[in-house]
Amino acid sequence: MTDINAVLGAADRALDQSLDRLFDLVRIPSISTDPAYKADCRRAGERIVADLSALGFSASLRDTPGHPMVVAHFEPKDASAKLPHFLFYGHYDVQPPDPLDKWTTPPFEPQKRTGKDGVVRLYGRGTADDKGQLLTFVEAMRAWITATGTLPIKATILIEGEEESGSPSLIPFLKENKAELACDAAFVCDTNMWDAKTPAITTRLRGMVKDEITITGPRVDLHSGAYGGPAANPLRVLSKLLSKLHDKNGRVTIPGFYDGVSDLPKEMKAQWGKLNFSDKKFLKEVGLSVPAGEKGKGVLEQVWARPTAEVNGIWGGYNGAGTKTVIPSEAHAKLTFRLVGKQNPQKILKAFRAFAKAEVPKDCKIEFAAYGSGSPATEIAETSPLIRKTAQGLKEEWKRDTALIGSGGSIPIVRYFKDILGMDSVLVGFGLNDDALHSPNEKYNLTSFHRGIRSWVRILAAIGR
Amino acid sequence: MTDINAVLGAADRALDQSLDRLFDLVRIPSISTDPAYKADCRRAGERIVADLSALGFSASLRDTPGHPMVVAHFEPKDASAKLPHFLFYGHYDVQPPDPLDKWTTPPFEPQKRTGKDGVVRLYGRGTADDKGQLLTFVEAMRAWITATGTLPIKATILIEGEEESGSPSLIPFLKENKAELACDAAFVCDTNMWDAKTPAITTRLRGMVKDEITITGPRVDLHSGAYGGPAANPLRVLSKLLSKLHDKNGRVTIPGFYDGVSDLPKEMKAQWGKLNFSDKKFLKEVGLSVPAGEKGKGVLEQVWARPTAEVNGIWGGYNGAGTKTVIPSEAHAKLTFRLVGKQNPQKILKAFRAFAKAEVPKDCKIEFAAYGSGSPATEIAETSPLIRKTAQGLKEEWKRDTALIGSGGSIPIVRYFKDILGMDSVLVGFGLNDDALHSPNEKYNLTSFHRGIRSWVRILAAIGR
Repeated sequence: MTDINAVLGAADRALDQSLDRLFDLVRIPSISTDPAYKADCRRAGERIVADLSALGFSASLRDTPGHPMVVAHFEPKDASAKLPHFLFYGHYDVQPPDPLDKWTTPPFEPQKRTGKDGVVRLYGRGTADDKGQLLTFVEAMRAWITATGTLPIKATILIEGEEESGSPSLIPFLKENKAELACDAAFVCDTNMWDAKTPAITTRLRGMVKDEITITGPRVDLHSGAYGGPAANPLRVLSKLLSKLHDKNGRVTIPGFYDGVSDLPKEMKAQWGKLNFSDKKFLKEVGLSVPAGEKGKGVLEQVWARPTAEVNGIWGGYNGAGTKTVIPSEAHAKLTFRLVGKQNPQKILKAFRAFAKAEVPKDCKIEFAAYGSGSPATEIAETSPLIRKTAQGLKEEWKRDTALIGSGGSIPIVRYFKDILGMDSVLVGFGLNDDALHSPNEKYNLTSFHRGIRSWVRILAAIGR
Repeated sequence: MTDINAVLGAADRALDQSLDRLFDLVRIPSISTDPAYKADCRRAGERIVADLSALGFSASLRDTPGHPMVVAHFEPKDASAKLPHFLFYGHYDVQPPDPLDKWTTPPFEPQKRTGKDGVVRLYGRGTADDKGQLLTFVEAMRAWITATGTLPIKATILIEGEEESGSPSLIPFLKENKAELACDAAFVCDTNMWDAKTPAITTRLRGMVKDEITITGPRVDLHSGAYGGPAANPLRVLSKLLSKLHDKNGRVTIPGFYDGVSDLPKEMKAQWGKLNFSDKKFLKEVGLSVPAGEKGKGVLEQVWARPTAEVNGIWGGYNGAGTKTVIPSEAHAKLTFRLVGKQNPQKILKAFRAFAKAEVPKDCKIEFAAYGSGSPATEIAETSPLIRKTAQGLKEEWKRDTALIGSGGSIPIVRYFKDILGMDSVLVGFGLNDDALHSPNEKYNLTSFHRGIRSWVRILAAIGR
C-alpha cells in the first residue's frame, strides 16, 4: 500500500516547478479560433507532448484538419495487475484575449499576485481555462511517478486544441481512434468547484435541441394603412405562438413535453438545499428579482433539473430609426429547448413543430430550420462507485463533503465520450465563479492549482488499485 | 349661364397640347429626396409658375429651406360677384425611379403606348403621381379660361415639391402664409377612382399614432444554459404583451381603445355594399385568404372604419446565421395604431402604455419612444353641399354614381389644411390601383388624364357660381 503522504509531499515540493510549467504554457498564445496563431497552437501541443514523454508516457501529437491533438498513454509498471483504465481530458487552446486594454497585466505574460484579501492568484489567459486545470492532473501524475515510479491506474490523456472554437475535429478523431481511446471512464477537468472551499462533481448536464421558425403571411410587405385589419400580420402570429409556449405557472404547454422528466428525488433536493444557495442573490447579480421559471421550484432545481423552452432571438418587419408603416411578409424566431431526464430531442422537436403549426392561421406558412439533431441530457448516477470514490478523494483534500451539482448548460464532450466511446465521464474541476473565463484578467487561484493537484493525487489513489 | 359644352370642347381640342405639357413636366426628374436633383425640382416648379402666369394667374415660386412651393392666385373677371374661393393642391416632385432595369422605357422619357387590351397609357415617373393628376385641374382651368375668359370660382393653387420626402417645409409654410392660403375649402388631387369606370371621392381617412417599446430584463445578455428557467426573458415578455393586444375576435383589448368609435351607419354600409368589392380577391392578391381583423366585419369596414393596433417590427436577441444560446437583455417592438371616428391619439398612446406596463414583470423595465403626437381620423360629412356638388360633377362625366370611399392610410395634408388653415378638403383623383406608383413603369391611363380634365371642368361649374 502506497503512502499517500509521500505522493502529496512530492506534489508540494514540486509546486514551484509546477507553476513554472503552467506559466511556460500560458506564455504560448494558443488561440484556436484565430488562424494567425496556428503555429502557437501546435507549439502548445508539442510542449505537452514533450513533457508527458519525459514523464514516461508514450505521447504523440496527432494531426487533424484543424489543430493537433495530444494523445498519451501510461502503462503502469505492474503490467500483470488488471488496473482500471481511465481517460483524462483537457484542452490546450484558449479564448482570444480582447479587449486587451482591460487587462491589468498582458494576457500572455502570466503573473502571480497577492490580492488585498491575502489570496494568491495566477493571472493570464488560460491560467484557469484550461491550462491550469489540465495541469492539475498532469502534475498529480508527476507526483505519483516521482514518489512511486508509477501510477495506480492505466492512464490515457487526451488534450484537445479546438475546444474554444467548436471542436470541429473532435468527433471524427474519436471515431477514427475509438479502439485506442475507449477506457473504463473519462475524467474531464474543465468545470468549477461549488465555492472556494467546497469541491464539486458535476453529475447533471441538460441536453439541448434547437429550432428556428419563419412565419410567412402576405406574400410581400404591405402598407399597414391599406391592409391593417384584414391582413394577417406574421409578427402578431409569431407573438401569439411564442406566448402560448408557457402557461401561467411557467410550465411548457407543448403536449408531451414533460415525457421522460422525473420529479427531483427527495435526497437530491435535500442535498442541494444544503448548498446554501441564494436564489435572490443569483437573480440580483443579473439585475432581476422575480423568479421567472416554473412556479414553486427554486433556481437550482430549475436550472439543473427542469427543461426549458427559450426564445433566443426574434426579428421581423422594420427595426431601423424612426417608423415604417409596414405589415411584413415574414417573422422569425430562434428557440432552444434545454432537456433533462429522458427527454428525447427529436420527439421534442416534433412535438414543438406540431404545436407551432396548429397556432398558425391556415393562410400563413410556417417553416422550420433545425440546427443539428440535438442531444439528450446527461445524468451520471450519484451512486456509482466511481463518483463515490472521486467524491471521497476530494473530501479528504478539502475537508468538506463534495457537492454533487448540476449544470444548466451542455458540455458536448461528455455526450461524445458516451455516444462514440461508450464511456461515462466524471466532471471534476477547481475553477471558481470569479475566474473571468473568456474575459480580461482571467485568473486561477493558487489554491485551486495546488490543492487541485493534491486532489488528483488522492483521486488517483481512490480509483486505482 | 356658361355653356358647359363649350368648355368641354375647349378641353377636348387642347388634349394634344395638354399631353405635351404633361410630358414636358415628366421629362424633368424632380426627385425631391435626392439632393442631386435639387435644380431639377426647382426647374419643375418654375415651369408650372410660367405656365400658370401665362394663363393669367399671379404665380410665384416661393423658397423654403427645402424645395420651393408654387403658389398661384386667379381673380375672376367679375370681381364684384362674391365667388367661392377654393385651394387646389398637388405636388410636382416624384419618387426615385429605381430599379431602373425594370422599366420598359426610361422613366423620364414619357411615352404614350396602346396595350394589347386597346387601353392607351402614359408611361413615365410622375405621369400619375402627381404630375398627371395635378395637370387635370390646371388643364380644366385652362379650358374654362379659353372658352369663357375666366373661372367660375376664385382659385388658389398650391403645388408642393416635397411630398415624396416627408413634406418637411409644409407646416411652417402653411403657418407663415395662413392669410394668403386659407380658402373656403381645398381640393386635393392625389387619390384614385374606385375603378376604371367609377369616380370616387375619399371622405374618410384613418388617423394614426405610433409607439416604440423596449423591454429590458437582465442587465446583460445571459447564457440560456446557466440562466434558462429562472431568468426573465424579455423576448417572452414582449411576445406575451403583443399577444394580449387582441382578443380571439380580433378586437383590441386596450381599455378605452374604442372610445369615440361609432358603428358604421347603415346607409354607409349599404353604399359600400354596392361597390362590388370582393374581400376574397383583395386578400388573394397578397397571398392571403383568411380575414384577420375583427370578426363579422368585411374588409372595407375594417380598413375604412375600424381602428387597429398593428406591430410593424420586432427585434431582440440573436438573428444571425446559426444559433446563439442567449437570453438577451432587451426586446423591442414598433407599433402603429390606426384611428377612426373621434379616437384621441394621445389618449390611445396613454392607454396603450398603461396596458403594456401592467403586462411587464416588476423586475423588468419597459420604455417608450413615441414618434410625433399622432393625428386623429378625418371624416368629411358625405352630406356637405361641396361633396354633393363634386359628386354630381363627377357623375355627369362618368355616367355613374360617384363612390364615397375611405382610405385606410393617412393623408397628412388634409390634417394640416384643417388644423392650420381651418378648411375641409375634398379628395378627388383619377388614378387607378394598377398605376404602379412608386414602382417601375408608372403609368396614367389616357382616360384618367382626359376625362379627369373633363371632370374638373364639370366640378368647377358645379361648385362655382
